[in-house]
Amino acid sequence: MEKSNGEVKEEFKAPSDGSVCGFDSLHRLLKENLKPQHFQEVSRIIHGLNCGKALKAITLPKSAAALSLDRGFDLQAFSFNAEKELLREPRIVRVGLIQNSIALPTTAPFLDQKRAIFEKLEPIIDAAGASGVNILCLQEAWMMPFAFCTREKRWCEFAEPVDGESTKFLQKFAVKYNMVIISSILERDINHGEVIWNTAVVIGNHGNIIGKHRKNHIPRIGDFNESTYYVEGNTGHPVFETAYGKIAINICYGRHHPLNWLAFGLNGAEIVFNPSATVGELSEPMWPIEARNAAIANSYFAASVNRVGTEIYPNPFTSGDGKPAHPDLGLFYGSSHFSAPDASSTPSLSRNRDGLIIADMDLNLCRQYKDKWGFRMTARYDLYADLLARYLKPDFEPQVISDPLLHKKSS
Amino acid sequence: MEKSNGEVKEEFKAPSDGSVCGFDSLHRLLKENLKPQHFQEVSRIIHGLNCGKALKAITLPKSAAALSLDRGFDLQAFSFNAEKELLREPRIVRVGLIQNSIALPTTAPFLDQKRAIFEKLEPIIDAAGASGVNILCLQEAWMMPFAFCTREKRWCEFAEPVDGESTKFLQKFAVKYNMVIISSILERDINHGEVIWNTAVVIGNHGNIIGKHRKNHIPRIGDFNESTYYVEGNTGHPVFETAYGKIAINICYGRHHPLNWLAFGLNGAEIVFNPSATVGELSEPMWPIEARNAAIANSYFAASVNRVGTEIYPNPFTSGDGKPAHPDLGLFYGSSHFSAPDASSTPSLSRNRDGLIIADMDLNLCRQYKDKWGFRMTARYDLYADLLARYLKPDFEPQVISDPLLHKKSS
Repeated sequence: MEKSNGEVKEEFKAPSDGSVCGFDSLHRLLKENLKPQHFQEVSRIIHGLNCGKALKAITLPKSAAALSLDRGFDLQAFSFNAEKELLREPRIVRVGLIQNSIALPTTAPFLDQKRAIFEKLEPIIDAAGASGVNILCLQEAWMMPFAFCTREKRWCEFAEPVDGESTKFLQKFAVKYNMVIISSILERDINHGEVIWNTAVVIGNHGNIIGKHRKNHIPRIGDFNESTYYVEGNTGHPVFETAYGKIAINICYGRHHPLNWLAFGLNGAEIVFNPSATVGELSEPMWPIEARNAAIANSYFAASVNRVGTEIYPNPFTSGDGKPAHPDLGLFYGSSHFSAPDASSTPSLSRNRDGLIIADMDLNLCRQYKDKWGFRMTARYDLYADLLARYLKPDFEPQVISDPLLHKKSS
Repeated sequence: MEKSNGEVKEEFKAPSDGSVCGFDSLHRLLKENLKPQHFQEVSRIIHGLNCGKALKAITLPKSAAALSLDRGFDLQAFSFNAEKELLREPRIVRVGLIQNSIALPTTAPFLDQKRAIFEKLEPIIDAAGASGVNILCLQEAWMMPFAFCTREKRWCEFAEPVDGESTKFLQKFAVKYNMVIISSILERDINHGEVIWNTAVVIGNHGNIIGKHRKNHIPRIGDFNESTYYVEGNTGHPVFETAYGKIAINICYGRHHPLNWLAFGLNGAEIVFNPSATVGELSEPMWPIEARNAAIANSYFAASVNRVGTEIYPNPFTSGDGKPAHPDLGLFYGSSHFSAPDASSTPSLSRNRDGLIIADMDLNLCRQYKDKWGFRMTARYDLYADLLARYLKPDFEPQVISDPLLHKKSS
């Protein structure tokens, strides 16, 4: 796999299992291969652009485009639609997502690896800043390789306190660009026995730490088991009220849990970020579905970020795919994108390259769609509060109506 | 719009609002316009056929194909993948979904309209029977035009008791073909003051009525309001244990509610049917998302059925789209399809024509994916039981962490 500087390193080769296809972007593939009217029709279905609506492209400053060209990262920007209201001004927020591969082989000294990622991200964050991004979100555990597949404990050394060097690195950009930044790190909780968590730190636009959220749902997928390193979060479902709107973070595997998405919605989130690290063979067909479903069901924006590239480890391991031990988890397929409450979504960033995707979203769209579709009004939460309470009991009996003729032979 | 017999009737013309595109099937459009290797790659993403898996086409008996040709209905059949297990035999069930337009203008005498639908469905049900379908599901309120957009009360005359003539019509097929049939009707509950419900009747493979489920979530979308006719169902979330597996029915608008899908899963459903009647401008971009998300999140199969065509009413009405009064709700876009717990899905039936789609599914796949992805094990239902109980209280306060510098001016 080619790195953003054009240099080819053995550590980033594409897996040879045949499951990963060669194209870089579904959107571009279709655009290049379909007639314009067919492309438009397919986009209508795939990206939810009904009723003659169109995602407008945003013109970014030349400096951002120049950084993208110079550093070889994908750069895309769109604007979602919303109605003008009579009593509220539009509340347009510019949101950015950064996806990236790691910068050095996993065999390099840890501090070098981390610093090299900082260095690699700097121009991409600058491009976001130059573009006037208000809220920026990085991928899950962006400050390290996603080493949890190895089950080796030494990777814990990457963990930092919430106010550690990765946070400090980002705080200066938050101040410089008046930007809220969501930073998903491996956290070491010094004051509670040095335990480790998977944590998103929310940095305010003045560089202050507004708070943190710890990953609620921890994957056990086959023999891939992140609870080797950290367990289920203890921070509930906080919504962070920032200068640019109410935001929440559903970390990675939590996107498979509709209840997790729901809880952030009940607490008032207008944008829910899903910083992820997930590979093609496992989850790629789910990736365009789950966050978008959450945006529809909860009448908020969803922002999906996934890392890029294949990370090779020194010692082979098994990773839940039933294959013999091998040195990589698979291809992190990027494809970061946004989904909106009106069921529309942006195209995705590249499957293979670092990238920055930007969207302008009028947060008024959330309430407009609550009013239009009435999902909260028709939700009957009382039924489900009751069901879940009953389900928790050891003697729960499912509501099953059996055919009394079940064991009668057919005539 | 062309009827299945080739005759063109004014009542079935496509709307002229520009929102409805001309293609009949996304799958066929892509297949015809992309190079084979591109088509395969796009299918992998769109239909979730990862890891070299492929949906196998099923060879149906010639009699079924002949009926499809003769009557002009779309006929497609697929087989989902599952692993062989060591301790359980495969539990392969053949499931069919029928989508159709109405058969006579809405101005025809009501009994004629209903009988004409019976007549039109007969050969399609015969094709399902000839194909060995075990469980068949029809679309929402299949025995009438979907007149709830008119807000006129006279359409209530279509309502029937659970054991009414529509049930009797289907019972003979259930017996003849040893088939479970899910029949979504407008129900009149004689024993409770003749009140009306939106109800799915489950007919066992011996022709017996196993039970009924009443639509849990009733749409109010803009000024489209089905609660003019019936209110929220009072039958909970029953799972019906049939000769061919445990099934449940999430009627139409209930598909927008992840909690509704969840509840059927908690009660043990292996296949959840979503008989629907929904139009292009409102919901088409959500249609490929929601049932598929439910199949993934709940580790069961989902089966989506939507009606076909544009139904013209005698008196114009407004229908939530903000346009002046007009005589139709819009195009019911068909597109019936299946989704599986492994995130794969079949292509969809035609957007414009009547159709029968069939899939073989090994119900063992449900538990295989529960075991693999561990969603139930990692669900933390206790958190959500508690949250929903608190949310119901009038003094619920969302979990919000405000930036203390929220109102500080930027330097």
